[in-house]
Formats: sequence, C-alpha cells, structure tokens
Amino acid sequence: MSEIDSADMGPWLSLEDLEFVRRKVPIVYVDVVPIRLDDDGTCAGIGMLLRVDETGISREFPSGRVLFHEPIRDALARHIEKDLGNLSLARLPHSITPFSVQEYFPTPGTRAEDLQDARQHRVDLSYIVPIDGTVNPGNDALEFTWFTLGEVKTPELQAEMSPGHASLLRRALAELGEI
Amino acid sequence: MSEIDSADMGPWLSLEDLEFVRRKVPIVYVDVVPIRLDDDGTCAGIGMLLRVDETGISREFPSGRVLFHEPIRDALARHIEKDLGNLSLARLPHSITPFSVQEYFPTPGTRAEDLQDARQHRVDLSYIVPIDGTVNPGNDALEFTWFTLGEVKTPELQAEMSPGHASLLRRALAELGEI
Amino acid sequence: MSEIDSADMGPWLSLEDLEFVRRKVPIVYVDVVPIRLDDDGTCAGIGMLLRVDETGISREFPSGRVLFHEPIRDALARHIEKDLGNLSLARLPHSITPFSVQEYFPTPGTRAEDLQDARQHRVDLSYIVPIDGTVNPGNDALEFTWFTLGEVKTPELQAEMSPGHASLLRRALAELGEI
Amino acid sequence: MSEIDSADMGPWLSLEDLEFVRRKVPIVYVDVVPIRLDDDGTCAGIGMLLRVDETGISREFPSGRVLFHEPIRDALARHIEKDLGNLSLARLPHSITPFSVQEYFPTPGTRAEDLQDARQHRVDLSYIVPIDGTVNPGNDALEFTWFTLGEVKTPELQAEMSPGHASLLRRALAELGEI
Repeated sequence: MSEIDSADMGPWLSLEDLEFVRRKVPIVYVDVVPIRLDDDGTCAGIGMLLRVDETGISREFPSGRVLFHEPIRDALARHIEKDLGNLSLARLPHSITPFSVQEYFPTPGTRAEDLQDARQHRVDLSYIVPIDGTVNPGNDALEFTWFTLGEVKTPELQAEMSPGHASLLRRALAELGEI
Repeated sequence: MSEIDSADMGPWLSLEDLEFVRRKVPIVYVDVVPIRLDDDGTCAGIGMLLRVDETGISREFPSGRVLFHEPIRDALARHIEKDLGNLSLARLPHSITPFSVQEYFPTPGTRAEDLQDARQHRVDLSYIVPIDGTVNPGNDALEFTWFTLGEVKTPELQAEMSPGHASLLRRALAELGEI
Repeated sequence: MSEIDSADMGPWLSLEDLEFVRRKVPIVYVDVVPIRLDDDGTCAGIGMLLRVDETGISREFPSGRVLFHEPIRDALARHIEKDLGNLSLARLPHSITPFSVQEYFPTPGTRAEDLQDARQHRVDLSYIVPIDGTVNPGNDALEFTWFTLGEVKTPELQAEMSPGHASLLRRALAELGEI
Repeated sequence: MSEIDSADMGPWLSLEDLEFVRRKVPIVYVDVVPIRLDDDGTCAGIGMLLRVDETGISREFPSGRVLFHEPIRDALARHIEKDLGNLSLARLPHSITPFSVQEYFPTPGTRAEDLQDARQHRVDLSYIVPIDGTVNPGNDALEFTWFTLGEVKTPELQAEMSPGHASLLRRALAELGEI
C-alpha cells in the first residue's frame, strides 16, 4: 500500500497532505535494530537492509512513520513485517520506552553532529528487536544481511550507513554492552 | 504568544493548520515532572500546577507540543519557562531519551487503560526535571505546589489529576525508586 | 545443590564463609519478573512463586545471588532454571543494565521505605523476563501462578508479597506502561 | 582514610578481610562519569583523572567500592568527594538505576571483550554526574582534566584509558546522544 495513491484511507495520507504536515510539525518515526540473540541473551549479530535510493546504496535499519491513531507497537509490527517479512518472529519490546531517541531536522543545525532529513523534522524512537525467525526483506530492499559484532564495529561497514543510522548502530552496541 | 492569533510565525501554526495536522499525524509532546532534590539525590518533593479548564480543576505537570524544527531540549526549556517561570533553575536532562512514553488517542482504545485526548493523537516523551530555583507559574495556572512523596502517593491527590498524569506520576515514582 | 553442604565448590561458599562475607560487603542479587507477552508485546500476565518460610507464606519473584566469577547472564539463567524449570523458554535480556535497582540493609534504615534483609546488605539488579514455555517451579516453592494485570494491581495480592517484591512489581508495571 | 591501616572500622575492611571477600563474592563498585552541562542540557565536556599506578599512567573516571551498609547514593557522594573534592557541586542522580553495568572478572573470560581486574570480580554500576563547581582532585591523582566531546572521541585519548573505562566513556557518549 502506497501513500501516493491513497486519497482518503484513514491513517494514510495523500501525498499532498503528507507534504503539508511535514512542514508543520515533527513527524514520529520508529527505528528497529534487528538482532540475533544466543540462548544466554548475548548478541550474536545485527541485521541491516541494503537499499538503493537517489543518493546511492546504503545499509539501513527498518524505520518508518507512526500513523495517525496507530499505537507504537502496531507501527513497530507493521514496519517489521513490511521490511523483514512475516516469518521473522520478531520479539516486540515489552516497553514502548525507546532505548534511544534521535532528532532529524530539515535544514542544517547549529552543530555539525545534527542529523538531517530534507523532507521533514523527525523524532525517531528506537528499539532493539530480537529476531527468532527467517527474514524476507520487502521489495524495496536489495537484501538483508546479518553481520557479526566484529563486522558492524568496522569503520568500513559504518561508512555504508547514513550518519543517523551509523550513530543508531553505535548506540545499540552501547545498550548491548558491546562498544 | 498564542497559537490562535499567529497566521504565519515559523514553527507556530494557525489554529486552522493546527486542527488539520492534529487529524493527520501523531503530535509530539514533552511532559515534565518537576522534582526537588536533596543534596544526596533523594527526591524531597514533586511539583504540580493547578489548572482550570472546561472539565474542571486538576493538578497537572507542565506539558506541551514540540514545534516544527524545535529540538526536544528547546521544547523542554520553553515549556518549563512558560509554566514554571524563568527563575526555576531547571536542570535539563543530559539525555533526550525519555524515562517513559505515553500515547493518547482521540477516540477510546480497545483497552480500558488507553489514554484519551479528544483533540489529537499524542506521543508524550516524559522527563524528570530537578528544579533548584523558585517557581512562578504562568497565567494559565492557578498555582504551583510542591507535594511530599507521602502526599503524592495518596489516592486523594492522584484523583485530582487526569488519568494520564496520575499514571505519569506513578511512573516517575517508580523511576525515583519511591513506589 | 545447596550452599550448606558444599565445603569447597568453586563459586559456592561454605555456610561459614557465606555468613562471614555477608557481614563484610554488599551481596549482588538478580531479581526476575517473569511475564507473559502477547504477540504485539503487550503484557498478558505476571508470574510469581508461592513460598513458605519462617515468616509465613508469600508470593515472590525468582531471586538469588550472583556467584563469584559468574556473569550476570549466567546467574539469571541459573535462577530461572532453578525456580521456573528448564522448559520455561525464558528470553534472557539483551542488555545487562537492570530496569531497576533495590537496596536491602541488614538493620532498619533512616527512612521508613528502606528495605530490610536481616541476613545481609543486598544490591538487587532487576530484570523483566518474558517466558514463552512452561513453568515447573522447583521444590522450594509450593506453586507458580500467572496473574493478570488486573490481579497484580490489587492491594490484596500485593499484601501477599514482601515490601521489596511488592515495590519491584509496581516498578515493573511502570516499566511496562501498566501503572 | 586507607583501608590498609583500619583493623575494625565498621564498613571498612582490614586488608586481610578484603583479600578474603574478593575471592568469595562479586564486589559492587560505582563508576562516575563527570560531565559539564550547558544550560540547555547539552554536554560541554567530560572529565577524567590522570593517575599513575604499577601499570603506568592512565586516564580514569572516579570509581570505587560500595561499603557494607552504605547506600549507593552515599558511595557516589563519598567517591566524588574523595576524587573531585568537596567543591565540585556534583548533581547526584535522582535514580539509582545505572545507565550501564560492567562486569570485571579476575581471570580472562571466554570472550576477548571481557574486562579483567586481577584483584577481584567486580560489578560496576555506572552513573553520569553533572558537575557544577570546581574540581580539586585528591592526592592519588596527578590531575583532573575536562575534555571536549571532540577530544574524548579520538582514539588517542581513549588509548590513554583502560579498556573498561574507554568502553564506559563510549557508553556514556551513547547515553548523551553523542556517538
């Protein structure tokens, strides 16, 4: 289901309405850091999508808007199913308090570290989500790859990510006690 | 500065635009739980505003929207200054990760506990903020009162709060280790 | 395996040594709040053991010492297996940062809320642990019961718990967004 | 006050007793990451001690044992006063839940990342502590230095720290949203 062709679909917005609200208020996003867990709870791997867009190829975490009237848990479940398939057996978090929050602004901020998203002002609530099943990435991704902790810590892999998602990765590693 | 009379004021919205976006996307709020701290970090009191609105009198925490292009820290500072005055010497949090998140929906949810705000779908990010100075509540509050931990734990005081803020109070007490 | 009859068993202590160290340093404990999760991550129930000791019958969460040279994750796994059986399919936390910390002192503190454990000074690190399998409580418990959120919120059920575990329950409810 | 010359000083241990308990149970430590905050809550700097010991010179955060019968808040205040002086105007945390936990083991672990402390098995509870006053480091430190965020992020500075404290620094940067 695309936002573009939906004139009036409940929580979905027409492209025109979406453009309008994106210039009026911050937009709530949820970000998902998929992880593989060993039986004892230690992290065995972190998963990322490979996507192509106008700026090139990059590694990304599943991420997307929370819709009008949509609970955060439902938004998480929806984006996980869309990006990781319906066999991923994701363990949705028991608390909706995110482990980290990121802000993206539509114009450059006063600090070099400020994150940018030309389309909108975003407030991203981030969650670490253990995946027990099989991932089948959606059509808008080239592939989904599990990386070892050794791999995700390399500057090379982080250089394939946007600054925001590379920061999110490092924050997730800190939460996991792996940085 | 009121949102009502501001046709085009940067991040502020006209009343019409605000009504529009409130039916299109979740609105980001910040909530502030003002506390008094003893020197050793134990909580000596929790502060609340007393407000009158169409539904009657209630005890409330400072709370309000995050504006377009406004960082969360700035939104916290703005609402604290508006509601607690500019001599409150609030200690803004060093992390923008909230200690709790609450969702308010414009229509009744499937669960009895679901919080409601008839005007909008809200995602509230909540922060505990120690106050070192003097509070001078703004004009839209009747008074501001510091309560002891014993007082805020009583059902009587919690009954003077909205269900959402009474829940926020209990979550803050849990974070403080006082529940 | 009992600590009493083990003179020299690596991390295990003789009764004499245990008594000695318990008067010398704080003892690290892990506490486990077992929960049932629905598919969307909402909490469907909270589990407790029913135990008899010299002070009577009480509802309790699994809890116990971290041994010398034992990682926190291993201590969690060991106490979960001992108290909930080896078919509980517990989801060990991906972070060892506890959601709450409680201190128990061997003599009454200056504050009425201070928790006591006549045997020792304890620092309890608490974790919420989703349980996917079947619970078979160990021999030192009369039974294990899943309670609904409605049930655990009642003063009656909380009155069957020690002050420390009743407080832990309320903190867990806050973390789950259910208080 | 040194632990060495105190045969029987309440919570203090004789050197002999300390050696004994350090081979019997995990020892609880508190770690303090001192930060400077701007008025809006953003981190302006992170402070470290410079110390000499048998292994050479290193940058360190204040850190030390929690004594028998000593509340975590008191242990924080005691170590801060000892290491940063009594004019540091430290803002003790309103919650004793640490933002991170680290485990140190007396012998090498199975994982390369496992932290070691040859003297003992430690469980370190870590806290970020804003400092408003003037720091006067104690006699067992050569100096105390405030570093900018740019400086602490360099591999050069992190190489002057122990692996455990360098990891703690990165976890603190993640908590501050600065990594």
